[in-house]
Amino acid sequence: MTGEEKDFFQKHYPDEFSHCYGCGTNNEHGHQLKSYWEGEEAVAVYRPAPEHTSLPGFVYGGLIASLVDCHGTGTAAAAAYRAAGRPMGTEPILRFVTASLHVDFLKPTPMGVPLVLRGKATEVKERKVVVEMTVSAGDAVCARGTVVAVLMPEAMRREVAEAGG
Amino acid sequence: MTGEEKDFFQKHYPDEFSHCYGCGTNNEHGHQLKSYWEGEEAVAVYRPAPEHTSLPGFVYGGLIASLVDCHGTGTAAAAAYRAAGRPMGTEPILRFVTASLHVDFLKPTPMGVPLVLRGKATEVKERKVVVEMTVSAGDAVCARGTVVAVLMPEAMRREVAEAGG
Repeated sequence: MTGEEKDFFQKHYPDEFSHCYGCGTNNEHGHQLKSYWEGEEAVAVYRPAPEHTSLPGFVYGGLIASLVDCHGTGTAAAAAYRAAGRPMGTEPILRFVTASLHVDFLKPTPMGVPLVLRGKATEVKERKVVVEMTVSAGDAVCARGTVVAVLMPEAMRREVAEAGG
Repeated sequence: MTGEEKDFFQKHYPDEFSHCYGCGTNNEHGHQLKSYWEGEEAVAVYRPAPEHTSLPGFVYGGLIASLVDCHGTGTAAAAAYRAAGRPMGTEPILRFVTASLHVDFLKPTPMGVPLVLRGKATEVKERKVVVEMTVSAGDAVCARGTVVAVLMPEAMRREVAEAGG
């Protein structure tokens, strides 16, 4: 099964929270990253477009950072639902935003192969989840990432709701 | 003067190193970030496109991370040339890649205003430069970033040269 066919995390984001360039199913211009569980691991696969280069033949770091960011917040939400014993998407909505993002680039990431992100929630609190992940191209782990995600502030949630999504 | 009119760092990258989606002048699909000196500070201004949203009304974190990354490596190169007492672009080429990227998202970044990046090279060694920066929207500092940049490995440089740029 591909991410498209799986019960991916982002499909459970409410409509007004689905506009993210990195992972929103309502953003037709964006990456539409899809993250799903494989046991305790959250996995996402992304195929860089030809223009996503740094140097010719290699993926640019900003794309990798974007994928780490969105896979991190998605995994944070999914892990929070798991911890709460609730199916993803049920009320009250648990939607996380990034407090901090860290990426270590271990080696140049080649173009032409799908990138595989594998993440684990290493800390799950009610308002804060830490997700650690790898980004691989084939057998090579090209980057490691850490996202500290926090439950979306109520003020931001209200502002989005008032904007009408 | 705008970044376009200034003597921006990325204009001095050799052609084969100018394909980056974030800052390459030869990447017509990309952000084409332009960084330039204002005294000791390296500055870049970027106007997010309408699709660069996270939640409606706010900029997605991956874009901010991308800009931090490219402004960081550009500033690293410019600082290394300054430290060497050479004009940017002169041989031997000093081109830096990102070893690690860290972004703290301090507050939601609003859409509709130019983002201003201001960076300083806080450590400049021959093969490693650390750049710390802020990302502001109007008067608000929305994010802080740190890039640890390393001189491009010779193997990568050869691979790029062999690929023909």
